Amino acid sequence: MKAYWQYKFPGNIFFGKESLNELERIYQKYEQKKTLIITDQGIKASGILQKLEEKLTRYAIPYEVYDEAKPEPTNSDVEEVLAQYLDKEVYVVIGLGGGSCIDLAKMVSFMLKTKQPLAYFYNNPIDFEVTPIIAIPTTSGTGSEVTGVAVVNDIDKHLKVGISSEKIKPQFAILDPLLTMGMPPRVTACSGIDALVHAVEAFTAKDFSSFPEDYVADFRGATMMSNMFAEKAIRLITENLVEAVTNGQNYEARHQMLLGSLLAGLAFSNAGTSMAHAAAYAIAGRAPSPHGEITGLMLPYAIKYNFSSNLSKFMELHRICVKESKGLDKNSEIFDYFIELLEQINLPTKLQQLGIVREDLPAMAKETMGITRLMNINPRQMDEKDLLTVFEMAFD
Amino acid sequence: MKAYWQYKFPGNIFFGKESLNELERIYQKYEQKKTLIITDQGIKASGILQKLEEKLTRYAIPYEVYDEAKPEPTNSDVEEVLAQYLDKEVYVVIGLGGGSCIDLAKMVSFMLKTKQPLAYFYNNPIDFEVTPIIAIPTTSGTGSEVTGVAVVNDIDKHLKVGISSEKIKPQFAILDPLLTMGMPPRVTACSGIDALVHAVEAFTAKDFSSFPEDYVADFRGATMMSNMFAEKAIRLITENLVEAVTNGQNYEARHQMLLGSLLAGLAFSNAGTSMAHAAAYAIAGRAPSPHGEITGLMLPYAIKYNFSSNLSKFMELHRICVKESKGLDKNSEIFDYFIELLEQINLPTKLQQLGIVREDLPAMAKETMGITRLMNINPRQMDEKDLLTVFEMAFD
Ligand SMILES: [Fe+2]
Ligand SMILES: [Fe+2]
Repeated sequence: MKAYWQYKFPGNIFFGKESLNELERIYQKYEQKKTLIITDQGIKASGILQKLEEKLTRYAIPYEVYDEAKPEPTNSDVEEVLAQYLDKEVYVVIGLGGGSCIDLAKMVSFMLKTKQPLAYFYNNPIDFEVTPIIAIPTTSGTGSEVTGVAVVNDIDKHLKVGISSEKIKPQFAILDPLLTMGMPPRVTACSGIDALVHAVEAFTAKDFSSFPEDYVADFRGATMMSNMFAEKAIRLITENLVEAVTNGQNYEARHQMLLGSLLAGLAFSNAGTSMAHAAAYAIAGRAPSPHGEITGLMLPYAIKYNFSSNLSKFMELHRICVKESKGLDKNSEIFDYFIELLEQINLPTKLQQLGIVREDLPAMAKETMGITRLMNINPRQMDEKDLLTVFEMAFD
Repeated sequence: MKAYWQYKFPGNIFFGKESLNELERIYQKYEQKKTLIITDQGIKASGILQKLEEKLTRYAIPYEVYDEAKPEPTNSDVEEVLAQYLDKEVYVVIGLGGGSCIDLAKMVSFMLKTKQPLAYFYNNPIDFEVTPIIAIPTTSGTGSEVTGVAVVNDIDKHLKVGISSEKIKPQFAILDPLLTMGMPPRVTACSGIDALVHAVEAFTAKDFSSFPEDYVADFRGATMMSNMFAEKAIRLITENLVEAVTNGQNYEARHQMLLGSLLAGLAFSNAGTSMAHAAAYAIAGRAPSPHGEITGLMLPYAIKYNFSSNLSKFMELHRICVKESKGLDKNSEIFDYFIELLEQINLPTKLQQLGIVREDLPAMAKETMGITRLMNINPRQMDEKDLLTVFEMAFD
């Protein structure tokens, strides 16, 4: 069993109103400044891209824009970017947007510096210096700005792979709550609940000390450090999510949500996420829902099932979240709390609502069990049958 | 005024019992492994160096040992190491010991890669890749293992300079509480109280938002992030310091002290320290006391003076530390708490006890005011006269 833990931290973080201004000083560090901004059509339409372009222009930073990022970047998306920009002498990559834009920026950052195909890095380390990455999230959700992970949907191999390396951790993460003010309620809800699931799954993860001594993984279970980040994240998000969804112009709520999602990222990037996220892989193949809609839906059922296996943590979660006891058992109260939270932000609470059919549940259980790097973190040991029970509970 | 904050994080941290074993995996990352261990005679005598040498030998890592590090490394110490090891093809530097050993390792790590003299870097950035650093602290105090700062005592220029660069932040910090078990009570007391001063001064530092927008410095005031680390550090250290000093074989107390000192390092390396540390520069020139003896002594007086200028933080400090109210005002109670803590671990509480003479106080006040990068962080605005008042209060 492990007697000691590891913690990997992000690079430099800038957090707060107008932190985008910091770009001027950041670029003083780069001798060659030619930049590729990677973003999407939504960010372009919202005016956020323009805001960034104005800053870069003011600071005399030469740049190009790729604004065709799609949700869940594919290997062919990466190839498309490379085809356009490989010979454009790019020295800095900015990922501007949600997790997908930042993940695509991470992949471009190292693919600009190698002749290997992307798939080579599914199994081989990145052992060269990559193009520096500046991550500028515009949602409060993925935490991708502080992790060294990029998820790619390989449409040729029919695989979803996480490429993981300290090299692709953004050198700078700029978190400016002003950039999140324009998020529509549904995006705020989906990204915000996902951040909460990150925090709760990290907080209630199996303890690091229960893993064998030679267990080496990106996700390594709960530690004192992840607990501290996760607990603070849970408080910030539960206290501000409904307000951020229903009153998006409340700057303070946006500020606290972005802070919560950052802290959740610092927690789960080391501790890991568990059942709700493992299930999300199986569900995503069958429902066109955004990631957070799926993980958020699964959370109450995962808690209900896991409760007794990490009693002290779930009791603490109850203390943090449930302000008024209804006199029920704690497990039911915390379950109800999360169901009501989903309802308040207009998210579904049953798999059926996503378009899942009952016949799919056994195959989903099997696929979920296959996501071992997450199921290993789940506080309760589970088999396929157990997962099927949880899916049935969540179905209708 | 600043509307956003910056946070700089350390590299990889390994924390816990036997984390020294992680060296085997760490060295898999280095193609060329020839290592220079920088340590001192105390570490050699304690058997800790031997423990490290056994690990390196077992993992077939070639190494050299420099075991002549002194407290407060000087420019000539750096030159001495370089003279001996510049042509020995060193690819990794391990700093093993207290802050002095780790700071010396940091300076050697970049001086091995440049033809410039050390003094060049007092004013110029380190803009090249340095030899990777692994920091292995054997005391619970300085936090140097997670900072990019090395303090050098330039005996030619009669200057104490902090060389600060992200490049000299250790790639890996290995914190193994077992290595701190042998610390004698006096070293435990001095290093432990210093860690507590780091935590308290970071916790009660002026808020980041009160600095002008263009304020750029290593120490940037309190943020939500530093508050979180500092508060946890204060709890851990105040709950375990007396036990660690009086019963050094209590592993749990040693574990919590090392964790507390790590968290204090994560806090003050961004927020900064203030009056007690600024005063320590002036006092150190006149008294042969260890650093922690000086900062620990100054803390209660600094708190007493600063209390009203950051009321909410000092009230929170009172809540954390003072378990039983004596019915005095909160300022007096927190002052008494820290004086009693010093007495319990056999540290002096009056400057006179250090050999300071009353005639020195005005000059000390003047010198302390000169440490602007720390005095800027102090919650209460001070001038020379105010500092003299504090020194007189602390004198006898
Ligand atoms: Fe997620
Ligand atoms: Fe100190």
